[in-house]
Amino acid sequence: MAKKKVAILGATGMVGQRFIEALTDHPYFEVGALVASAKREGGRYEDTGRWKLASRLPEEVGKLALIAPDADKVAASGVRIAFSALPSDVAAGLERDLAAKGIAVFSNTASHRMDEDVPLLIPEVNHETIGMVENKKGFIVTNANCSTTGLAVPLKVIQPLGIRRVFVATYQAISGAGYPGVPSLDILANVIPYIGKEEEKMQIEVKKILGGYDPGSKTVKYADFEVHPSCVRVPAVDGHLEAVEVELTERRSEREIIELFEGFESPKEVRKLPTAPQKPVIYRREPDRPQHRYDVDAGEPCDRAWGMAVSVGRVRVMGNFVRFILLSHNTRRGAAPGSVLNAELAYSRGYL
Amino acid sequence: MAKKKVAILGATGMVGQRFIEALTDHPYFEVGALVASAKREGGRYEDTGRWKLASRLPEEVGKLALIAPDADKVAASGVRIAFSALPSDVAAGLERDLAAKGIAVFSNTASHRMDEDVPLLIPEVNHETIGMVENKKGFIVTNANCSTTGLAVPLKVIQPLGIRRVFVATYQAISGAGYPGVPSLDILANVIPYIGKEEEKMQIEVKKILGGYDPGSKTVKYADFEVHPSCVRVPAVDGHLEAVEVELTERRSEREIIELFEGFESPKEVRKLPTAPQKPVIYRREPDRPQHRYDVDAGEPCDRAWGMAVSVGRVRVMGNFVRFILLSHNTRRGAAPGSVLNAELAYSRGYL
Amino acid sequence: MAKKKVAILGATGMVGQRFIEALTDHPYFEVGALVASAKREGGRYEDTGRWKLASRLPEEVGKLALIAPDADKVAASGVRIAFSALPSDVAAGLERDLAAKGIAVFSNTASHRMDEDVPLLIPEVNHETIGMVENKKGFIVTNANCSTTGLAVPLKVIQPLGIRRVFVATYQAISGAGYPGVPSLDILANVIPYIGKEEEKMQIEVKKILGGYDPGSKTVKYADFEVHPSCVRVPAVDGHLEAVEVELTERRSEREIIELFEGFESPKEVRKLPTAPQKPVIYRREPDRPQHRYDVDAGEPCDRAWGMAVSVGRVRVMGNFVRFILLSHNTRRGAAPGSVLNAELAYSRGYL
Amino acid sequence: MAKKKVAILGATGMVGQRFIEALTDHPYFEVGALVASAKREGGRYEDTGRWKLASRLPEEVGKLALIAPDADKVAASGVRIAFSALPSDVAAGLERDLAAKGIAVFSNTASHRMDEDVPLLIPEVNHETIGMVENKKGFIVTNANCSTTGLAVPLKVIQPLGIRRVFVATYQAISGAGYPGVPSLDILANVIPYIGKEEEKMQIEVKKILGGYDPGSKTVKYADFEVHPSCVRVPAVDGHLEAVEVELTERRSEREIIELFEGFESPKEVRKLPTAPQKPVIYRREPDRPQHRYDVDAGEPCDRAWGMAVSVGRVRVMGNFVRFILLSHNTRRGAAPGSVLNAELAYSRGYL
Repeated sequence: MAKKKVAILGATGMVGQRFIEALTDHPYFEVGALVASAKREGGRYEDTGRWKLASRLPEEVGKLALIAPDADKVAASGVRIAFSALPSDVAAGLERDLAAKGIAVFSNTASHRMDEDVPLLIPEVNHETIGMVENKKGFIVTNANCSTTGLAVPLKVIQPLGIRRVFVATYQAISGAGYPGVPSLDILANVIPYIGKEEEKMQIEVKKILGGYDPGSKTVKYADFEVHPSCVRVPAVDGHLEAVEVELTERRSEREIIELFEGFESPKEVRKLPTAPQKPVIYRREPDRPQHRYDVDAGEPCDRAWGMAVSVGRVRVMGNFVRFILLSHNTRRGAAPGSVLNAELAYSRGYL
Repeated sequence: MAKKKVAILGATGMVGQRFIEALTDHPYFEVGALVASAKREGGRYEDTGRWKLASRLPEEVGKLALIAPDADKVAASGVRIAFSALPSDVAAGLERDLAAKGIAVFSNTASHRMDEDVPLLIPEVNHETIGMVENKKGFIVTNANCSTTGLAVPLKVIQPLGIRRVFVATYQAISGAGYPGVPSLDILANVIPYIGKEEEKMQIEVKKILGGYDPGSKTVKYADFEVHPSCVRVPAVDGHLEAVEVELTERRSEREIIELFEGFESPKEVRKLPTAPQKPVIYRREPDRPQHRYDVDAGEPCDRAWGMAVSVGRVRVMGNFVRFILLSHNTRRGAAPGSVLNAELAYSRGYL
Repeated sequence: MAKKKVAILGATGMVGQRFIEALTDHPYFEVGALVASAKREGGRYEDTGRWKLASRLPEEVGKLALIAPDADKVAASGVRIAFSALPSDVAAGLERDLAAKGIAVFSNTASHRMDEDVPLLIPEVNHETIGMVENKKGFIVTNANCSTTGLAVPLKVIQPLGIRRVFVATYQAISGAGYPGVPSLDILANVIPYIGKEEEKMQIEVKKILGGYDPGSKTVKYADFEVHPSCVRVPAVDGHLEAVEVELTERRSEREIIELFEGFESPKEVRKLPTAPQKPVIYRREPDRPQHRYDVDAGEPCDRAWGMAVSVGRVRVMGNFVRFILLSHNTRRGAAPGSVLNAELAYSRGYL
Repeated sequence: MAKKKVAILGATGMVGQRFIEALTDHPYFEVGALVASAKREGGRYEDTGRWKLASRLPEEVGKLALIAPDADKVAASGVRIAFSALPSDVAAGLERDLAAKGIAVFSNTASHRMDEDVPLLIPEVNHETIGMVENKKGFIVTNANCSTTGLAVPLKVIQPLGIRRVFVATYQAISGAGYPGVPSLDILANVIPYIGKEEEKMQIEVKKILGGYDPGSKTVKYADFEVHPSCVRVPAVDGHLEAVEVELTERRSEREIIELFEGFESPKEVRKLPTAPQKPVIYRREPDRPQHRYDVDAGEPCDRAWGMAVSVGRVRVMGNFVRFILLSHNTRRGAAPGSVLNAELAYSRGYL
């Protein structure tokens, strides 16, 4: 069966590059159009000199001519699917315009995450919300913010125990700020205890993702627990580590919680998708893990789903509070391949 | 008036070096004896090649011959005051032995912190507990663990508002592990979400420091709120940053809390001590401070009290929870000079 | 055909781990014995907690019981081939003892590199020297020091132009010092302009590798040019970068030299070996490459030969001097897989 | 005597900030005007939020209103002395315009370094070239590029031995690129073997500085030896370390060369200037020094001349080649305070 051509919006940025990487030799999709800023229009991707990944830029993608961020031009390229890594201000208008032209937009950008008709989707957590776009021609589906994604997965695991409140402090890698991003003078041998708008995103996104879905009305509910985040940048290259504490409705044993993490599985329809990890959560029993150095790629360096599992460790119980550490790959699990996984779910359901 | 000769126990380690630095040209004390491991006995300090600070080793200290960690030998050196940076296993016995011989021991080691007759002292927080050693000949006074110290100072400031519970995630510098300490392969472009025994120390020490003191019985009470820490090593050289959240008994405004931080003062008898900072808490109103790069030395690079203030920033209120960021110098505020400040308080009261 | 069982000597260190990694699913060899320090004798490898690589420890290797570094015990295990990552002092005796018992030792250790009857082998550079061990039963073959290896390959490329003298300053990663290796306090946001014995090794090893081989007498000659190194540790994880300047016998154009680098090929019998890179030298035409971040794995992350190519860039000519930058993977090209490649060459010639 | 008011051109950049720091409480000069980009005109310095140093912005400087980079406006401020940290393109015109209006410009910018009538001045090395501006009303004096400065000082020391050729590889800190400067994704756990135009500057500037001066014609000669540099950025905050090799006209002993370094003194008229270091060269006899961590501030953290000495170590002789390591503070010795020292020399001679 012919692969579906897709556009990448914001193709020259860090997340755009991760989209290209995630779509290399993809079984369902192939890159047919690359959208960058208007000033680059017409130039070849490979001539921008923007490729910053250790993996190789696929030759045929490098030769594509760049398109300006204009809905008509994107539609004219013939694609019916777009992956968006646009800056928020550009995404706000363009993504809606593309949806209006019948294009399915899978976005990594924050602009429409909280819109009522937009699924905020992490397939391992709330796959049923993809139902919101059934029978629609053009639509937007978003993934969550990178630091939200890493948190939402283990919260899903322990949600059956009853969550009252969530405290979280983050240790976020520099790649989360894009390129050029964080100046080295600001972060070398230093940490920055502030990331613009990050805490606000975590607070609200987690509630939309974990609140539940009503298939009849095709609407999501918001969870009724609060998230209290402190977001901090640290000098690591890739990966957001988070120190989490959850107030549960009652005391549970460490053993019970660890077994929940170790036994967690994706829904069957998600598990078979190309970019879905074998195990969405990897629990580490060592006393000092997960760590960026060892766990950010979650053990599958040569598989399409590398970097898509969330690693969890150090479960500690104190009264009805449970603390743990998580780590997820911010530009893989929490960005482009996460969005590709969303598209795979829509594709497998026949929505595309 | 003649300065009092003091011994430094564990003089070749990182904290021992900070003791030497903190006592250089000190108005009350001068280094008269250096104690290191038995195998170095008799050698000159300057020949050990262990000095790792950017500041200079004072020449006359460098020429002192090292003494073995033996109570008789230390007592024979004629000192009546000792500063201890010993490893815990050595400290456990030697500090008691020295006290039994009439020596006042000011210790940075954990061994005796929780002993009933030992003040766990941060002069800006609980100066009255020094009263426990009045009229004693030999005794032990300890400072708190480095990560505890940074936390206890701002908690003292907001304690009048009513503390129910404390959540804290740390970003601790490598110097906290001594030398050679953390292997570079473990921490370069990485974080380690585990520091042995650190969380246990924070949990219990904060309670002893902030519980109150009864001058009649000369005993301390333990605070009745719990501390929930997650301790993490980050690739910074000096300074422990902490993301703190305190559950208060009722909602307070950000403004009120910031004004408490900005208005906080040390007790008068503490303020005039040589190593006491002018302001024990420096509140930063910038959105992204404090940071190791700018705040670890707390703005006084050429003063005896450099690195002795705790920097605080980012007060955020959510219901009756308040979050903030703090930073304190782990090998200054939280170690040797902190212990020197304790000795200055005892000296100024005439206990030495 | 049955794979040949091999022993790994010094199996728990950094290089030993790279040997295990390099031999996973190897077409010629399989790990049959693991040798560690005597105090670990009898314990399972997986229980040592020493595995520090991001890749997984193969299960069957993890379950092997450790053998003490004793020639009789190693021989009793039935292996006839051994890869050595021993500390120099242990290697000095044990490698000779094993050879005397008829075992072929492929060593990464410096102890016997300069011995007259030992090939100092980099197959892409001096494959013919393997002839020294033809018809021998037990013998030692060594690879070169990690910083020597990266240098010898491009020197081989330009040797036909006539080398008078070589100047080189290195930028060597921390993994070169093993684990725990370099303390983080020594290298974080710092460089160390000294690596013990490293300069001496480069000076002499390059001469033995590039001097030529006489098949009749089975002896090597030493090159008559001098190497002047300055070896410096930098805070990178893997990879040794080197700034090289070569005084040639006459002036050559940048173009000519770049074409030599781009056209360089391994000898045919080397090229087909499993761990040999497709191209032993990858020339980067970008102005600012090679770099550790992008080039240390030399573009083949999922192939047995990843990290085995040497990257070269920035050719600049000034009179009859040519400057260039090189980068090679110190624990891959310059260590264990380099030694495995040596064994593959011996195997393919039927010497094993 | 009243202090002379000075302007700082390019006051908001990293070097501009170092000028402000270097002039705080200066005995000869005080900051009277701050020049920044036109878009900031009229605003207060303290409101730009650009201060990036750990030291404090002096209050009275923070309150000054910014002036646009216009010669008339600068002259109208009444200053007759200006320190320039302008970007090259702005400096090219403005510095000449200011000189034409009778202003003495001490510049850290490259634009006019090679002009025939402009001294390229490092007082410890070629103080006599200041004579070029005697009896002039307006003029330009420049300091050298940061990596040139560190090299020129020790070359001056050994120049009497006869220099044939100089090889140098650098390890340059990120602060050399200004702010925001080097993106953290480019340098964290990485090195960049390329710094735009840096090698060209070193090659030519060293020759102008060390070639000699003819007081009669007031002209400088160019040295006749060549410099072969490889310039590399490393993840250190402040300080340029350089691995140097000098081909001498004949073989000299290590001892002789070390004694030259240890005995080197500034000319008497330079030594007494406020920003001149006590010893312009500090030779370190430890095997692994100098290092950024310990030597960048050259041991005088609380003195006006901190960071103004060049540290040298590891003298090694091989034939008539001598290798050594040097370290100098790129934004102190090699930038603003270096330029302030130049102005102090002109002031002390009565040229201002």
